[in-house]
Amino acid sequence: MGQPNDPTGDYTQINAVDWIPFPPPLCQGNIRWKLLHVSPESGRWTAIFDCPKGTSFNRHIHMGPGEYFLTKGRMNVRGGTDAGGATAVAPSYGYEACNARHDHTEFPEDSEFYMTFMGPLNFIDEAGNTVALVGSREVLGAWQAATAR
Amino acid sequence: MGQPNDPTGDYTQINAVDWIPFPPPLCQGNIRWKLLHVSPESGRWTAIFDCPKGTSFNRHIHMGPGEYFLTKGRMNVRGGTDAGGATAVAPSYGYEACNARHDHTEFPEDSEFYMTFMGPLNFIDEAGNTVALVGSREVLGAWQAATAR
Amino acid sequence: MGQPNDPTGDYTQINAVDWIPFPPPLCQGNIRWKLLHVSPESGRWTAIFDCPKGTSFNRHIHMGPGEYFLTKGRMNVRGGTDAGGATAVAPSYGYEACNARHDHTEFPEDSEFYMTFMGPLNFIDEAGNTVALVGSREVLGAWQAATAR
Amino acid sequence: MGQPNDPTGDYTQINAVDWIPFPPPLCQGNIRWKLLHVSPESGRWTAIFDCPKGTSFNRHIHMGPGEYFLTKGRMNVRGGTDAGGATAVAPSYGYEACNARHDHTEFPEDSEFYMTFMGPLNFIDEAGNTVALVGSREVLGAWQAATAR
Repeated sequence: MGQPNDPTGDYTQINAVDWIPFPPPLCQGNIRWKLLHVSPESGRWTAIFDCPKGTSFNRHIHMGPGEYFLTKGRMNVRGGTDAGGATAVAPSYGYEACNARHDHTEFPEDSEFYMTFMGPLNFIDEAGNTVALVGSREVLGAWQAATAR
Repeated sequence: MGQPNDPTGDYTQINAVDWIPFPPPLCQGNIRWKLLHVSPESGRWTAIFDCPKGTSFNRHIHMGPGEYFLTKGRMNVRGGTDAGGATAVAPSYGYEACNARHDHTEFPEDSEFYMTFMGPLNFIDEAGNTVALVGSREVLGAWQAATAR
Repeated sequence: MGQPNDPTGDYTQINAVDWIPFPPPLCQGNIRWKLLHVSPESGRWTAIFDCPKGTSFNRHIHMGPGEYFLTKGRMNVRGGTDAGGATAVAPSYGYEACNARHDHTEFPEDSEFYMTFMGPLNFIDEAGNTVALVGSREVLGAWQAATAR
Repeated sequence: MGQPNDPTGDYTQINAVDWIPFPPPLCQGNIRWKLLHVSPESGRWTAIFDCPKGTSFNRHIHMGPGEYFLTKGRMNVRGGTDAGGATAVAPSYGYEACNARHDHTEFPEDSEFYMTFMGPLNFIDEAGNTVALVGSREVLGAWQAATAR
């Protein structure tokens, strides 16, 4: 079942794991993450993200529901409340429905959030074409490649 | 919750629903289907497929686990047992794991199967690029478009 | 991952597996079953049931959603349509919602159905107290005990 | 879909919600909680718990997998590492497998954790009999009853 602090295991001492850059094609700016768990049978995965002021995630669709716990900062979804979207302010919880599309997810302050993902994220271009399909297998591969260095 | 015989409802009288051609980019030959249910919260969906002799599904990856009940005929997965893959013979049950890749799924006899899908199918080209990402929303859209005609 | 025809594996040749009596405290009459699959990570399980005319399942609550494919016969849920409940007639599909309570599930004809269960069944007495909580672990234990004889 | 700060909705401003005592039959001492979300289709639910030093949860089985994020303090599972169990120290992540049985879950320091539950908790007595089956419906009912006062 894997070792402690290994996302294939059952326990991670979060502060003992180094932050890793989140793959650049998926975000703007220096977002870093720690992959906490993958559930290979169902394709669920769980991670924590460090998002400095001014960073953002690129356009994506949640192919299954996701739940976040924003522990620090502020997250603007679809432009934030000022632009008709939503703004989450820590400490807060949010549920992202299956098929939710996020054209802009921006962090106007230094922020941190924990999130469980049921299924893959579909990163898309403006026309809706898949740029990267990021599920439990892909995040585990990316994590293992980055931490093996 | 939808009407009977509507995949957004809770009950379908299967023999009262007409078979619809399964979208041609996803298969070879005259495969037909009936969409039985979509679960919008989780992205699960359930369908039954009619696969005449000689038809096949195009290359795809199961982005979440799927379970099939082959009620008639024979299904060759990855070339079938003769080519190092697997052959299902009715009546049989099969579990397709999350991230299972099926380069060839062929029906050497007239066949029929019922299947529950946990999450989307990722139809891909030879290089692994996404051609069509088919989840609960997409199958419902395709079904409603086809049956509204 | 288990052998073929073992519910911990990925493939079952259904007609090569013997029917086993479904545990008597859970039903009335000679209902028989074949356990087809258990998914230990998520607690899902899949089975097929043979329900002769006059048999019934005892009072239970679905602790997670379930989906059935009635391939033969007729199933009366909550007394059937004659008593304000519902009657399924083969071939049919039904979705049982999370927390659905079934006080009576009767088979007025020889019937057969395949069903996927997301989570446990909570068999209860009239007062709603748990008599037997039947999840993936319990069905696997019951199946292995019965087939080891 | 419910209002903000309502567990049937999509967003909760956690610090705007009052802590509520967690039902006494399920724990020892003054554990308090905030129910953050229920997913009625699948039976998932999410909550945050405030566990003062010396409190504990009563014996229970996870009927589906659960994932926790311990943000403060220390949690001893099955007696803690000193007694052959495990001890989580904040900040940490843990995965509780489907069918995990927790005879003792104790907090030797003031602690707080966020947890997502896939399915119900089965609180049991020493003999393994169900004392309370606590799923998405039950937690929502308990939460609504407590916050309506």
